[in-house]
Amino acid sequence: MYSFRNDYSEGAHPVVLKALTETNLEQTRGYGLDPRCEKARALIRSLCAAPEADVHFVVGGTQANLLVIEAMLKPYEAVIAAHTGHINVHETGAIEGTGHKVIAVPSPDGKVTPAMIESVPELHSDEHQVKPAMVYVSNTTETGTVYSKAELTALRQCCDKHGLILFLDGARLGSALACGDMTLPDYAALADVFYIGGTKNGALFGEALVFARPRPDFRWHIKRRGAMFAKGRLLGLQFQALLENGAYLDAARHANALALRLRDGVAALGFPLPVESPSNQQFPVFPNEVVSKLQDMGYEFEVDHAVDAGHTQIRLVTSWATPEQAVEDFLRDLAVCADR
Amino acid sequence: MYSFRNDYSEGAHPVVLKALTETNLEQTRGYGLDPRCEKARALIRSLCAAPEADVHFVVGGTQANLLVIEAMLKPYEAVIAAHTGHINVHETGAIEGTGHKVIAVPSPDGKVTPAMIESVPELHSDEHQVKPAMVYVSNTTETGTVYSKAELTALRQCCDKHGLILFLDGARLGSALACGDMTLPDYAALADVFYIGGTKNGALFGEALVFARPRPDFRWHIKRRGAMFAKGRLLGLQFQALLENGAYLDAARHANALALRLRDGVAALGFPLPVESPSNQQFPVFPNEVVSKLQDMGYEFEVDHAVDAGHTQIRLVTSWATPEQAVEDFLRDLAVCADR
Amino acid sequence: MYSFRNDYSEGAHPVVLKALTETNLEQTRGYGLDPRCEKARALIRSLCAAPEADVHFVVGGTQANLLVIEAMLKPYEAVIAAHTGHINVHETGAIEGTGHKVIAVPSPDGKVTPAMIESVPELHSDEHQVKPAMVYVSNTTETGTVYSKAELTALRQCCDKHGLILFLDGARLGSALACGDMTLPDYAALADVFYIGGTKNGALFGEALVFARPRPDFRWHIKRRGAMFAKGRLLGLQFQALLENGAYLDAARHANALALRLRDGVAALGFPLPVESPSNQQFPVFPNEVVSKLQDMGYEFEVDHAVDAGHTQIRLVTSWATPEQAVEDFLRDLAVCADR
Amino acid sequence: MYSFRNDYSEGAHPVVLKALTETNLEQTRGYGLDPRCEKARALIRSLCAAPEADVHFVVGGTQANLLVIEAMLKPYEAVIAAHTGHINVHETGAIEGTGHKVIAVPSPDGKVTPAMIESVPELHSDEHQVKPAMVYVSNTTETGTVYSKAELTALRQCCDKHGLILFLDGARLGSALACGDMTLPDYAALADVFYIGGTKNGALFGEALVFARPRPDFRWHIKRRGAMFAKGRLLGLQFQALLENGAYLDAARHANALALRLRDGVAALGFPLPVESPSNQQFPVFPNEVVSKLQDMGYEFEVDHAVDAGHTQIRLVTSWATPEQAVEDFLRDLAVCADR
Repeated sequence: MYSFRNDYSEGAHPVVLKALTETNLEQTRGYGLDPRCEKARALIRSLCAAPEADVHFVVGGTQANLLVIEAMLKPYEAVIAAHTGHINVHETGAIEGTGHKVIAVPSPDGKVTPAMIESVPELHSDEHQVKPAMVYVSNTTETGTVYSKAELTALRQCCDKHGLILFLDGARLGSALACGDMTLPDYAALADVFYIGGTKNGALFGEALVFARPRPDFRWHIKRRGAMFAKGRLLGLQFQALLENGAYLDAARHANALALRLRDGVAALGFPLPVESPSNQQFPVFPNEVVSKLQDMGYEFEVDHAVDAGHTQIRLVTSWATPEQAVEDFLRDLAVCADR
Repeated sequence: MYSFRNDYSEGAHPVVLKALTETNLEQTRGYGLDPRCEKARALIRSLCAAPEADVHFVVGGTQANLLVIEAMLKPYEAVIAAHTGHINVHETGAIEGTGHKVIAVPSPDGKVTPAMIESVPELHSDEHQVKPAMVYVSNTTETGTVYSKAELTALRQCCDKHGLILFLDGARLGSALACGDMTLPDYAALADVFYIGGTKNGALFGEALVFARPRPDFRWHIKRRGAMFAKGRLLGLQFQALLENGAYLDAARHANALALRLRDGVAALGFPLPVESPSNQQFPVFPNEVVSKLQDMGYEFEVDHAVDAGHTQIRLVTSWATPEQAVEDFLRDLAVCADR
Repeated sequence: MYSFRNDYSEGAHPVVLKALTETNLEQTRGYGLDPRCEKARALIRSLCAAPEADVHFVVGGTQANLLVIEAMLKPYEAVIAAHTGHINVHETGAIEGTGHKVIAVPSPDGKVTPAMIESVPELHSDEHQVKPAMVYVSNTTETGTVYSKAELTALRQCCDKHGLILFLDGARLGSALACGDMTLPDYAALADVFYIGGTKNGALFGEALVFARPRPDFRWHIKRRGAMFAKGRLLGLQFQALLENGAYLDAARHANALALRLRDGVAALGFPLPVESPSNQQFPVFPNEVVSKLQDMGYEFEVDHAVDAGHTQIRLVTSWATPEQAVEDFLRDLAVCADR
Repeated sequence: MYSFRNDYSEGAHPVVLKALTETNLEQTRGYGLDPRCEKARALIRSLCAAPEADVHFVVGGTQANLLVIEAMLKPYEAVIAAHTGHINVHETGAIEGTGHKVIAVPSPDGKVTPAMIESVPELHSDEHQVKPAMVYVSNTTETGTVYSKAELTALRQCCDKHGLILFLDGARLGSALACGDMTLPDYAALADVFYIGGTKNGALFGEALVFARPRPDFRWHIKRRGAMFAKGRLLGLQFQALLENGAYLDAARHANALALRLRDGVAALGFPLPVESPSNQQFPVFPNEVVSKLQDMGYEFEVDHAVDAGHTQIRLVTSWATPEQAVEDFLRDLAVCADR
């Protein structure tokens, strides 16, 4: 049975595997100072319409988050995030591990709004409190929702008003690009720094950080946290493969389309999906016995939380690798489990 | 022209590439909790004759070093290393970045001896000084030398006497295994923790940490430093591929053999190699003009240091991927450059 | 006009000043290894009926908090506190500065309850989340409330059930001792570590940390964070002076009595005090114009928060040094300001 | 018998004790935002002829060192110090505790020279090594030697050439001012930041940090490390008392004069003093049995190191509080012990 547990269950997208195989015996310098990384950086700057941007590759999302925050904040500065934000919940205190407080604001849908930022008490604090210096958002968010261009523009203005850095975690940027109204140049224009997530959209690993302004010393930060990848060209290679002929966006569109097929099929069977998600994560609510039956059949997914004594919200994730048939099979088996 | 710059210039050993390709569409859980990692862990425990050992995979060497040191030391404890040790010189203060002092002891050949440990003033210090709690060694060392079993046994005894943890950095353990008298069970018996380096011996990336005693909370440390690899099974897969049929040791033997051929060829042409290295790094001293001519011909290697106004010590590194012909070509061209 | 801003506006309690003056030219070793500190430690162990306890002196409260948390938690462990807790709000991220997350639980009255602890999602988390390992409480709390012995006993049981350390910040322990049902032996029996606050009850500076079990290495932690006081005997001297003849408790009783006189006088004038505080901090709500008039008259106090457009909650703090007349003057002037 | 162990064995200089006593019941705001601190800051700026300087008070030297280094360096930057430097040897890894490497350069007399700085390999390093960004010196040094104005000017020029910050630890600045050719305006002109040590020259505690340029955010750093002193006016008071009528310099002159008397008396008895110190620390070498006899008589001092099997170098320290008679007694008893 298919696993809808996450979008990194499989290996690499075929274009990535092909690139790795074809270039396997090339010799290059290490640590990202190679022609493959150079090309990928140039390609990303071009796709972002941001010739001044600085591009750095790292292996994973938590690494990207902690490095950006550590590099851009002073020790006593803090980062504002939704209470559901990945850095607040799912990184084992990695941000605090670099010495910085995460100021969590309650968010109903995983998004941060200007009103939430304005409500942070520390915003006008003195030296007895941390100093907020950055806003962290994710697109798509941890609950599958997607920021519109209007929303991110409003956040940018709020950040400008308060002198805050805007950092956008793009671990699932592919899915957001494939369903929202934001383009890569929009991200580059609105965020001080964001990343194009590879791991969750077809790469074996890798996140491409795009800084609006040059950060030459970021390489020192990377190395100091053990995040400088020895065979660095593998990072460049993968982004080049995914981005140069549109595979990245195609893969995300495929994932989103199957997620919407799941959503519609689940809804047609009468089950609620309280989170309105247009992206590759869907959060249906099923009676507990339906959840158990699906698990007994071998389906894998994450249990999000217990809605009440009899119902559970689960998470279904699709990816570039999900076969259409797997979705149809799931919906058919769901109908069986639910006696509908 | 061939690059002798390092042993991670190419991609993956063929057995690794094959394993990645064949399993590409398998679905597994992330973060190392998958059957591939389980198998690799079991295989390593078996090869180490250490059924109680705890095995954790991380992506790279600096990551391995900082995680082990952070996990095993209290905040005020320090690690003793050779002044040439990787953690002292080449990790951008990664160890200090976790809050720990590296106590560097001068070493003529990259090795740490019991006498050097005994000479550390902090060894009998009070609360105004850091408290040494660990000895860090590498095998092979940063200068290509190799610890014998007798030497490591003596270090172990010294560590026991002073209550010190013995940590062995095995980024180049393959090369050490292929030329020294130490076996994997010896490492497991003598070190509190060591690692089997993948990156420098055929893996795309990856180091396998072997702890003598279970460290279940090490996964929290890994995650907190952004070092938990999402598609974790790739780490298990690679070590399985390299270790289960001997490719790991064969690859290292190949690298060592070509390094010795380089060494002998260089010596036959009358150039000194002051560091007596039996491993895959060789450090010949050439007249500056010979170095320049080799570079002009397109050879790549690292310049180690200026020996005097007219002579430079360089580093030549071989790997699983180095063709025999590249070595012969180099020696022939060296003779030409040197007019011999 | 008198300042009710805090309980550390003046210098030292007379018994402290006398002790400093009389012993000024004594010569002792530094860093707390002197007979004065020895005596104070013995006295505290005796007053706590805790012969096994380990006593360490530090200069201030934030220092005490960050040192205890850093010394007792592993890097990935976190501390649970009320959202109003000093470590969450007023220490500029000092706890995060040692690498630890503060998990804030919403609290209506500044106290932590077992139910709040049980509600922490991270309590049953895996390695993707921090691991709660400690509960931090203050007595008196930041809002002036006081834990009863029954409440702290219930917390202790909850901590035992979940393997959590119980740490009690006693910056205002004097005030709590003078009005609650907890004695020093009770604190020593229920908390893993707590402190007897000097700064806010008559000392020039100083907090006496009492650990239930010996922590010989705590001196290393103290020194590493720059918190080892050179003329250490000053810390011992002050605690000896305050504790050996009851001045500590008398001072706190005086402060509490004047605070209750303030409370009753304010209430008699018809103003609400929404926080029910039996201790030396009172939080009355006044119309904004009354607040302004009091300030214009020269009274000093902290503005806590705006209750609504027309009313403000302020904080009035009394201390060992507050003259009775200052309280009566304030109440008389308040009546004038309020036209009552 | 008198203790020559250190210059912080006693309490406070009389002018300090008088100021504390006279102002004891004044009410002021906490945390250094009071008129006493304001006056002391103005006085220091004036004495330094540095109207733009920023003055911050902290309690002790290790605190001062770690705060300055943390505030002025980026995470991957390092500080160069003599191998005998206080931050390298006697602070339990406090600097590493803030994430920074101390690059120790061997120094025969405790001083750092431009040649030593130029010899630091990391000075021209890449992102695999820490980046030196600061030079740390002490005056007087840990071995009692004193930098001349010419020496510090040369260091300043070397720092300018390499873009390095010059930080001068003035824990014993009094002694240096009283015997060298450097004035307070010279320090303010040559160092980016230095401090005027109180603890070792008559204050109960306190170091006055003088930054050449405003550092308004330094208060955030202070608070975050638990170093913001609640009754902050005590810091201002003490420096005002010591500095406004010359007590600071007089105290240091007294200490130096007695140290030189010790030096001359010791030398007259035929004992060597290998370290040529013009300041309040003297390092005579005695036969071991003389050391033992002095200790048996009750004299206290630190044992510096064993010179050879039969001889020991000790440290004798004088202070503002040392009576002349104590020195004469010591010399007389030394003659007796040595049979001369």
